[in-house]
Amino acid sequence: MVHEAEASFGLAPDSGSCKALQRVIDQDRLFPAEPGIRKTARMLYQHTKALPIVSPHGHCDPTQLADDGPFGDPATELVTRDHYILRLLYSQGVPLEALGVQPLDGGWAQSDGREIWRELARSYHHFRGTPSKLWLDHTLAEVLDVGTPLRAETADEVYDDVCARLADDRFRPRAFYERFGIEFLATTDGALDTLEPHAHLRASGWGGRMAPTFRPDDVVDPERSDFRSNVAALGELTGADTSTWRGYLEALRTRRAFFVAAGCTASDHGHPTPATADLSPGDAEQLFATVLRGEPGPADSECFRAQMLVEMAAMSMEDGLVLQLHVGAWRNHNRDVAARFGPDMGADMPRAVDFVSSLQPLLSRFGNESRLTVVVYTLDETTYSRELAPLAGHYPALRLGPPWWFYDSPEGMRRFYGHVIETAGFANTVGFNDDARSLLSIPARHDVARRVNAGYLAGLVAEHRLEEGDAVEIAENLAYHHARHTFRVSS
Amino acid sequence: MVHEAEASFGLAPDSGSCKALQRVIDQDRLFPAEPGIRKTARMLYQHTKALPIVSPHGHCDPTQLADDGPFGDPATELVTRDHYILRLLYSQGVPLEALGVQPLDGGWAQSDGREIWRELARSYHHFRGTPSKLWLDHTLAEVLDVGTPLRAETADEVYDDVCARLADDRFRPRAFYERFGIEFLATTDGALDTLEPHAHLRASGWGGRMAPTFRPDDVVDPERSDFRSNVAALGELTGADTSTWRGYLEALRTRRAFFVAAGCTASDHGHPTPATADLSPGDAEQLFATVLRGEPGPADSECFRAQMLVEMAAMSMEDGLVLQLHVGAWRNHNRDVAARFGPDMGADMPRAVDFVSSLQPLLSRFGNESRLTVVVYTLDETTYSRELAPLAGHYPALRLGPPWWFYDSPEGMRRFYGHVIETAGFANTVGFNDDARSLLSIPARHDVARRVNAGYLAGLVAEHRLEEGDAVEIAENLAYHHARHTFRVSS
Amino acid sequence: MVHEAEASFGLAPDSGSCKALQRVIDQDRLFPAEPGIRKTARMLYQHTKALPIVSPHGHCDPTQLADDGPFGDPATELVTRDHYILRLLYSQGVPLEALGVQPLDGGWAQSDGREIWRELARSYHHFRGTPSKLWLDHTLAEVLDVGTPLRAETADEVYDDVCARLADDRFRPRAFYERFGIEFLATTDGALDTLEPHAHLRASGWGGRMAPTFRPDDVVDPERSDFRSNVAALGELTGADTSTWRGYLEALRTRRAFFVAAGCTASDHGHPTPATADLSPGDAEQLFATVLRGEPGPADSECFRAQMLVEMAAMSMEDGLVLQLHVGAWRNHNRDVAARFGPDMGADMPRAVDFVSSLQPLLSRFGNESRLTVVVYTLDETTYSRELAPLAGHYPALRLGPPWWFYDSPEGMRRFYGHVIETAGFANTVGFNDDARSLLSIPARHDVARRVNAGYLAGLVAEHRLEEGDAVEIAENLAYHHARHTFRVSS
Repeated sequence: MVHEAEASFGLAPDSGSCKALQRVIDQDRLFPAEPGIRKTARMLYQHTKALPIVSPHGHCDPTQLADDGPFGDPATELVTRDHYILRLLYSQGVPLEALGVQPLDGGWAQSDGREIWRELARSYHHFRGTPSKLWLDHTLAEVLDVGTPLRAETADEVYDDVCARLADDRFRPRAFYERFGIEFLATTDGALDTLEPHAHLRASGWGGRMAPTFRPDDVVDPERSDFRSNVAALGELTGADTSTWRGYLEALRTRRAFFVAAGCTASDHGHPTPATADLSPGDAEQLFATVLRGEPGPADSECFRAQMLVEMAAMSMEDGLVLQLHVGAWRNHNRDVAARFGPDMGADMPRAVDFVSSLQPLLSRFGNESRLTVVVYTLDETTYSRELAPLAGHYPALRLGPPWWFYDSPEGMRRFYGHVIETAGFANTVGFNDDARSLLSIPARHDVARRVNAGYLAGLVAEHRLEEGDAVEIAENLAYHHARHTFRVSS
Repeated sequence: MVHEAEASFGLAPDSGSCKALQRVIDQDRLFPAEPGIRKTARMLYQHTKALPIVSPHGHCDPTQLADDGPFGDPATELVTRDHYILRLLYSQGVPLEALGVQPLDGGWAQSDGREIWRELARSYHHFRGTPSKLWLDHTLAEVLDVGTPLRAETADEVYDDVCARLADDRFRPRAFYERFGIEFLATTDGALDTLEPHAHLRASGWGGRMAPTFRPDDVVDPERSDFRSNVAALGELTGADTSTWRGYLEALRTRRAFFVAAGCTASDHGHPTPATADLSPGDAEQLFATVLRGEPGPADSECFRAQMLVEMAAMSMEDGLVLQLHVGAWRNHNRDVAARFGPDMGADMPRAVDFVSSLQPLLSRFGNESRLTVVVYTLDETTYSRELAPLAGHYPALRLGPPWWFYDSPEGMRRFYGHVIETAGFANTVGFNDDARSLLSIPARHDVARRVNAGYLAGLVAEHRLEEGDAVEIAENLAYHHARHTFRVSS
Repeated sequence: MVHEAEASFGLAPDSGSCKALQRVIDQDRLFPAEPGIRKTARMLYQHTKALPIVSPHGHCDPTQLADDGPFGDPATELVTRDHYILRLLYSQGVPLEALGVQPLDGGWAQSDGREIWRELARSYHHFRGTPSKLWLDHTLAEVLDVGTPLRAETADEVYDDVCARLADDRFRPRAFYERFGIEFLATTDGALDTLEPHAHLRASGWGGRMAPTFRPDDVVDPERSDFRSNVAALGELTGADTSTWRGYLEALRTRRAFFVAAGCTASDHGHPTPATADLSPGDAEQLFATVLRGEPGPADSECFRAQMLVEMAAMSMEDGLVLQLHVGAWRNHNRDVAARFGPDMGADMPRAVDFVSSLQPLLSRFGNESRLTVVVYTLDETTYSRELAPLAGHYPALRLGPPWWFYDSPEGMRRFYGHVIETAGFANTVGFNDDARSLLSIPARHDVARRVNAGYLAGLVAEHRLEEGDAVEIAENLAYHHARHTFRVSS
């Protein structure tokens, strides 16, 4: 078997580190084992591996690119901020403090990056079989050019290598952006965000393209403790009277326009359920009054979020923002961890959802509009074939987001394709989202997706369910064109 | 690799079109890629490909076979009537009118078959990876002997070829029936249907066997707008007083006898949920009065449909009809499309169901009866292993229908077998249903199933989970004997 | 292809029966077909096949090992007591009486083992593709050294062979225990059980290790008809006043201590749902009074069982018992069969469950405790990736039990790994449980699991998702070390 040399997204390795690299990650990784399928998978991957990266949804820090300063401590960047890493280590008894997570009460947390890194290395075997290991191995080997596999005994060696690399001027955020071949990078921003880093970047004459995403959960979810103050702040920011329903909607419209001016092409909504509602204007106004001034019960809050999705869709009909729904997570399930450390500690849990009934109000109003694009992401895989593929395979406005979060994984992607494509076709999917929290991990995530896609399509070719030429076209669509088109990057 | 020549269900191709055929559909299609498994799959397929077709559930038009006139325009037959085709094209922005669907208000619809066909051809790439493409490619290549692959540029060429073929006397409905090797073909008919085409066919001395299926949803579902008038018509048709519970049941018994006399071996029930109920006679009578004369709420209607399934099972104990349940679709989810075009436009959506609690009333009453056969079809795959296989693997009366609708597909079938067989065994399944709406597509559907079955069984053989001789027997059962036996075709 | 000779768990076969054996079960069974993967799978299996058996959950009869008398009639041991066998035969119309199941009213049942065996043999083809056939074929060929495949015509020959074998002194229970390489064997015992066989075994100086499991459903589930009398008996047995909440808890603590003294390392709870509750002491006391003296409604009973899981977890924090949850079965779904024959006749049906909300009270109280181990088993596979893997991949106290019951099968295990590992990792799983009802079937079940594990891990190796050395370590963990560690066998 011949492995072609591959430079991929990282720096071109010298021959010494190349040997090392091959010890860490194999050039055929994630391709199916059957030799005929693998050969086709390699071919398909060759067509997509160098395509630009379109990243329409993620959580990178816009100030990193705006400032273009050196990355901080690698443990903070690659461990403490990564809730996938935190959760699995925590489940095996590693205290969050030992991973650098600061308790809200100001209590002790490990602040020595090397010690945090050692903690990861000691438990790195627990990540065998997880996408976190695929991503981190790729990031270390191909992005950071570290030739030594990470394990307990190599913790210091790897840490020193990474620190040395990140101290190098060629490993600054904008240099990575260029080297990774990123064409478009969306961040995720609250409705009250001033988008200063985005303005700074545009003003700097930088050639890249970073866009905000309008995520107004902070002013839409009445169950947030800061909801009322956020709505008040929204009024101040926009000059609208957000104590009235009409003024509140006007303020949101103003903020959307502000985001659009900053390059935004999509909104995003992180709701606990996919509920949508289409109340009469009078009922909506009354509900707003209830959630703003009264003491809303859970049903009021749920209904208000539901109504707001239809309002957002109506605004999208005007301003063209793609409407993204990330639904189905019970946030902060672990009360003790939430109380001690706050949100995003790996304690969010998926729940069963019902898209067919939940989305009906939205789809009844706007589902037949080709001008609108609604992209749905779910954590409930049982809806892939039962609900989402049938809905997306009918309604012109609906598209299926890629496997999200726990399903952004080789098996997760294979299940997604297996359950969705036969009913929805490829054209009702939108390509890949990396959802990354660190710029450093973006190429790894796209690479895993491109490899899994190549393997999946190669399997269809091998069973004569797809012609080879069509498979090339679909692979390129999934890697690049679908995301670019759906998220209106090209327009 | 040697491909044996194959004539399959179509006409024996001449050598010229044979080369063309191989460009469109491969002789090894749908067989697993691993060479050892593929070899066994080919062998198993050879055992089943020429077996007769038993089609116990479908929606073919009985007048076609009764009249035996030439097929109409191919676009009407293969596009406009196929809700799988309509839905995916509609999801990609193609108006239903452009596909020949007539609005209810008499507005414009495309009536030129060639233009409809071009619309399909232009978007045919959206069907890559879907069973619709497998079926249509097979129908064109093997049934209609068209050697040119369908795509935008070949639209007219293919259309002309198909028209020429259908103008040929050898391509009339009865000739197809013979050529396809059909042994039994069931239609689906309302309780008020006069079954005239069936009578006409029997009177004609034709050697084939077409049977009606008793589908009384029109007189059983109180949520239909024509429910009351249908119940009244049922009374007129049978001479029973359908304003009373006793008379209504008597009228249904009379209609079932009429269907049985016309060759019917099964009833079918298209309910939104699998709910069954076993009320006392007094309560049932009162519920009937409510739904017939009063204003039934949704719970009344649901309970009435539920009760009627148990009544139908009781009648099956007398007259021997197999009771089929097709449950779990939210019909006409797209209100706008339903209002403009009516039902069956590809806007039906599956929902989660609970068989374990829903079927208990029916199974408590009749589940232990070997004389009764209840065949359940579902659109909620999550119940395959959790509910249906355990139920069918215990209750003598219960059998599992094949993957239905969105799951009548290669991946759908593989998941069905993977989730069901280990708990229910093969003997609690009933073989294949084509559920076809056009006679022309019947062989394609059976061929896909026989190929997928061969591949699945070959995989078990390769892992020494099944002996080769047993696999042959099971393949033949799944292709032919199970359906023939379950639906009492042989009796 | 070279098959290495294999003696496995059975007696070393002579060359004559060896040839026969190979006709029944293949040495490569359950390994994936792709040659590269199969080769790795064989290697991994070689590392685990001879490891000791740890059996932390099952239903073997402790008196068999205590008495060490000869096994009774093989039909009773292998057919009548096996609810997997009963259910599938019953679903195909075989009366339970014909399989030796005694009706509660004392009516006729077949008592001639040979006739029961013939009944099985006549219908043995219905088990093709099921794990029951894998297990029974293994038990006959490798445990009982029977070289003839079971089918209708060989019924008597196989029966005679098995009888001859079981009459041999080398085929007594303790001899099997040794030969199988069992290191730890847990039984399942009610809270009122005297554990006499366990005491007898310990007193006998036998070198094996059999431990009881504390399964207090009899005194915890208010919906059992004998609940009140059991609670009273609990009081008599312990000297505590079980008419009070405090006394009832004290009595349970006393019984747990008695079990611990007998070698018990785990409790087990067979609840219809995973509901947990954490009431205030006053509310709990009042609820106890309601369920004990009043007429508890279903919600009271559900809440009481829910509360008791948290009480049990609190006791586990003191005495160290691992808390096992077997949830989600609707027991005795077939009312007629339950009325005529009693429980455990193959009529238990899985239902959908919601772990994320149900377990929150328990996890809020104890989920962050590394000292506690809660092992969850489910019959609702849809929760694997949506709920269980995310929960176990975060909470330190939670571990995932292996695929249970209907999912203790090759496909069931593959789905489990495919859905769970990417999110939870291997370390949050607990290895294999055989759940066996007969000592004779224990090696077959572990062998199937070890083979499936080898194949699954070999697939990861082939796709370079796991290094070969790591795969060996994980295979050994799954076969032996995880169970030993989780269930505190080593302590």
